[in-house]
Amino acid sequence: MSNTQNSHTSPVAERQLVLTLGCPDTTGIVARLSSFIAQHGGWITEADYFTDPDSGWFFTRQAVRAESLDTPVEEFRAEFDEIATGFGPGARWRIWDTARRKRAVILVSKEGHCLHDLLGRVDQNDYPMDVAAVIGNHEDLRVIAENHNVPFHHVPFPKDAVGKRASFDRVAELVNEHEPDAVVLARFMQILPPDLCEMWEGRAINIHHSFLPSFMGARPYHQAYKRGVKLIGATCHYATSALDDGPIIEQDVIRITHKDTPADMQRLGRDAEKIVLARGLRFHLEDRVQVYGNRTVVFD
Amino acid sequence: MSNTQNSHTSPVAERQLVLTLGCPDTTGIVARLSSFIAQHGGWITEADYFTDPDSGWFFTRQAVRAESLDTPVEEFRAEFDEIATGFGPGARWRIWDTARRKRAVILVSKEGHCLHDLLGRVDQNDYPMDVAAVIGNHEDLRVIAENHNVPFHHVPFPKDAVGKRASFDRVAELVNEHEPDAVVLARFMQILPPDLCEMWEGRAINIHHSFLPSFMGARPYHQAYKRGVKLIGATCHYATSALDDGPIIEQDVIRITHKDTPADMQRLGRDAEKIVLARGLRFHLEDRVQVYGNRTVVFD
Amino acid sequence: MSNTQNSHTSPVAERQLVLTLGCPDTTGIVARLSSFIAQHGGWITEADYFTDPDSGWFFTRQAVRAESLDTPVEEFRAEFDEIATGFGPGARWRIWDTARRKRAVILVSKEGHCLHDLLGRVDQNDYPMDVAAVIGNHEDLRVIAENHNVPFHHVPFPKDAVGKRASFDRVAELVNEHEPDAVVLARFMQILPPDLCEMWEGRAINIHHSFLPSFMGARPYHQAYKRGVKLIGATCHYATSALDDGPIIEQDVIRITHKDTPADMQRLGRDAEKIVLARGLRFHLEDRVQVYGNRTVVFD
Amino acid sequence: MSNTQNSHTSPVAERQLVLTLGCPDTTGIVARLSSFIAQHGGWITEADYFTDPDSGWFFTRQAVRAESLDTPVEEFRAEFDEIATGFGPGARWRIWDTARRKRAVILVSKEGHCLHDLLGRVDQNDYPMDVAAVIGNHEDLRVIAENHNVPFHHVPFPKDAVGKRASFDRVAELVNEHEPDAVVLARFMQILPPDLCEMWEGRAINIHHSFLPSFMGARPYHQAYKRGVKLIGATCHYATSALDDGPIIEQDVIRITHKDTPADMQRLGRDAEKIVLARGLRFHLEDRVQVYGNRTVVFD
Repeated sequence: MSNTQNSHTSPVAERQLVLTLGCPDTTGIVARLSSFIAQHGGWITEADYFTDPDSGWFFTRQAVRAESLDTPVEEFRAEFDEIATGFGPGARWRIWDTARRKRAVILVSKEGHCLHDLLGRVDQNDYPMDVAAVIGNHEDLRVIAENHNVPFHHVPFPKDAVGKRASFDRVAELVNEHEPDAVVLARFMQILPPDLCEMWEGRAINIHHSFLPSFMGARPYHQAYKRGVKLIGATCHYATSALDDGPIIEQDVIRITHKDTPADMQRLGRDAEKIVLARGLRFHLEDRVQVYGNRTVVFD
Repeated sequence: MSNTQNSHTSPVAERQLVLTLGCPDTTGIVARLSSFIAQHGGWITEADYFTDPDSGWFFTRQAVRAESLDTPVEEFRAEFDEIATGFGPGARWRIWDTARRKRAVILVSKEGHCLHDLLGRVDQNDYPMDVAAVIGNHEDLRVIAENHNVPFHHVPFPKDAVGKRASFDRVAELVNEHEPDAVVLARFMQILPPDLCEMWEGRAINIHHSFLPSFMGARPYHQAYKRGVKLIGATCHYATSALDDGPIIEQDVIRITHKDTPADMQRLGRDAEKIVLARGLRFHLEDRVQVYGNRTVVFD
Repeated sequence: MSNTQNSHTSPVAERQLVLTLGCPDTTGIVARLSSFIAQHGGWITEADYFTDPDSGWFFTRQAVRAESLDTPVEEFRAEFDEIATGFGPGARWRIWDTARRKRAVILVSKEGHCLHDLLGRVDQNDYPMDVAAVIGNHEDLRVIAENHNVPFHHVPFPKDAVGKRASFDRVAELVNEHEPDAVVLARFMQILPPDLCEMWEGRAINIHHSFLPSFMGARPYHQAYKRGVKLIGATCHYATSALDDGPIIEQDVIRITHKDTPADMQRLGRDAEKIVLARGLRFHLEDRVQVYGNRTVVFD
Repeated sequence: MSNTQNSHTSPVAERQLVLTLGCPDTTGIVARLSSFIAQHGGWITEADYFTDPDSGWFFTRQAVRAESLDTPVEEFRAEFDEIATGFGPGARWRIWDTARRKRAVILVSKEGHCLHDLLGRVDQNDYPMDVAAVIGNHEDLRVIAENHNVPFHHVPFPKDAVGKRASFDRVAELVNEHEPDAVVLARFMQILPPDLCEMWEGRAINIHHSFLPSFMGARPYHQAYKRGVKLIGATCHYATSALDDGPIIEQDVIRITHKDTPADMQRLGRDAEKIVLARGLRFHLEDRVQVYGNRTVVFD
């Protein structure tokens, strides 16, 4: 039995422990990790490593077949906690037991293509994820949520600052009661206030309809049209208090021509948006993403 | 015989007249054009049309097999000049006889991949173009030019403003004596002064090593690394006095990962740069590009 | 007013007449067409031309703003019928009034991603199309159809030849009562018998989960895995009696690595399948496709 | 110091030992490997692992900074040889000291774009490779080779079987005297006889101008035109006695339309061919490719 088998099985297909670690790079980390896992009989199905040359920070993700371990998960976790103290100041690690499905709340507005696409994926069991709720600042997408048996909450957003703040508080309340692993902004057209970005740091996932950093902010397709670009794009990133400037998880582009108006771009761009969001969310849910500074490691 | 056959033959392969027209959109332009060409027996091998809905400006490109015409080129051109007066104020038209090969001057610095690639294409007769000269602000690429029997001129660029200006004047002199159809900035690392941009308006073609408008200016790969993007790109555009903000002809991207350092991006990006420049230059040389405002129609 | 304005407006957004013509290439076709349209005041919003150099066959598609015409559609059509007799033997033409929405019937099996995606597009009014019915050889996808208020018919397919033939007859009956413009095989896992292919010639649209002509027939992802390719693809084509060999409308690919098993390919490939089918179907519905021999002109 | 730092430095930029291993998957391989390297103070700059679930075969590639080791290369290699005996029957391993540049011989015919592109990359030091010779069955490309100071040998290929065989023997003689790490078939239009394929197994790298397995054999662009595909491709693979059926290293595609004739495809396809060959060759030279059955692991 190997302790590194990249058979690339999805966490949906079998129970795994997914161990992720980020720490200052020092001697023998890999040796200690692989010995520890091997001692417990762990069958590694996927292993990735990366050291950032600038910061000297080391990152790894290892997926272990749960049934190959000779100890219960909690014990394994406790033992790892002990050796992890040797990984230096600031080390961050996590062991996710895929038997625990992740929970998401999805925030939407009027455009339904991303929501429709995500819920379709959930129904066909693409993700190790349940959707606890959909929250919309309009009623339009209730039907999509309810078709998939997901509760829909309508939280209207008034124009005035005080009313808007109250709405955000209501959204936060609705979100937090589910303690979600992912807060998905699926074409939610409201800008999250800084305190919510902070509260959901590393969990709030946005899809922006441009190839960032081009065309940040409002109406990116109109900006793209005005600039006369020959490709348009979509970017999935963690939301931070710096608008459209958070760590990027995934991006893609599609080709356009001089014939395409902003309305055409909107239509064509929807496919890029939903595909890029779906990929980025999958990476997040499967613990494939680690953030350092404003950059991400994505072990895909 | 049709008067619209899109057999898409390259102007290199047979003699064509390529008629391009941009004018305010009014009734019956296509009818008048196609009648005029048909009256002279013209066999159209390619025809494209576009009206910009914002400006109401009409654009067309028509390629006519030269041997199908019943009149000499000069006469055809003179007759067209007469009917063109009916195409409204500001109409711009041109008839290019592909028997006249285009002329280019290429400006370079130290990075040779674009020059090497372009001269390889010229040698295998991909372009209806001769390269009159290569001008470098360093000696490094002389060997590439001379291997392809193209004269190389070394114009050193001192750091001081007066010396630099004198160098630009020398470059302009060397360029202008060839009356080039294209002044190709093939990774030329000096910023053209506004008067040269103006003098070569619509002829100075730059390759910028980013997906514009992202990462304008210096060291775009370092900017891209810092931002943590997942794709890098290249943009071929007309140089204008607004740095890296001229009308875009062609763009493309390539995928990178967290493992790629700025040095990796430079290495990987070279392929995007040379391919995008090569495509953009071909569109320009074959009169497939028309500029309106800061946008381009590209009849590819 | 021009008679060629490529403002590229979708037929969903405004009422258009879409004229398509395929005929032997002869002198002055474009002139006659554009004159005819101009005489009726027609405002052309999109115009494309192509002549196939091998067969000497000419193809065009012209979209005319309906409200710009000075005659009712039926009269326009009747007049066109008269001049069309001059377009030579075998000429095929059609004028589609976009006020008449197209009708589709969708055939499915157990895999729901294409159906889910298509019905989402229909709901957000991407297509000039209504879905009259979904027919499945299993019950699995009934819920998707009914969520979108589309009637679902279950036609079980027994293994034996006689039973299977009876099932096909039942499917044909259910399909034909709607006189559909498109019979979409959205991962329908039964091979259409030749008589149905013939009956629905040019209307039966299949999505095959490989980059044809690679990996025709059953289990293309397993074939791809076995061959060790580095990209997998999807192909949207007209179904003909030659299995997976009909005229191709659209194709695309996605990158894989040695890590991807056939199961991974199935998961990743779904996105290619649904996007390629969606694009191909749009081209078909908007009369952008014309077939000649086993090839297609696609005026996208 | 870590023993897994993916700083992804190219073997051209610093001296590395690149260790590659393929063996039956058993317990603790990674532990033994990483311990061995760590014991010698090895600083790992890149590490990749993969186990093929079908064959149960384990593959790894590890790049170690040469200057970090406490032993000379030969000693390191000898010690590794000892532990490697424990890796089971059929284990294949290699330690490449990047101080030893690889050697290539390039076979060509009349089409020069791949040769021109490769020699340009060699000149700008992209590859850890010297080109020992170029051999052509025509004289056409002598000028390209000589411009890059590479010896060119002309070996004419007569039509008759006996003469052709004699020519292959001459080619083999010219190739073998350089004991090359790569025999690059850069649009060499002759089919290698089985004995040469065998002699150069795992070293003969071909570029085929189609997306294999589509359009094997002669004139793939004409086959592609005939089939009416919407994308054309290029495939870099190891040559084996099964024509165009060897293990694939890299592939890519480019979009075409109904307007593109076989001649257009040839012109457009050149860019795909040269880029795909360049990528595939780099993977091969940097020991990133391992073959198992007819498939490849590519640790890119």
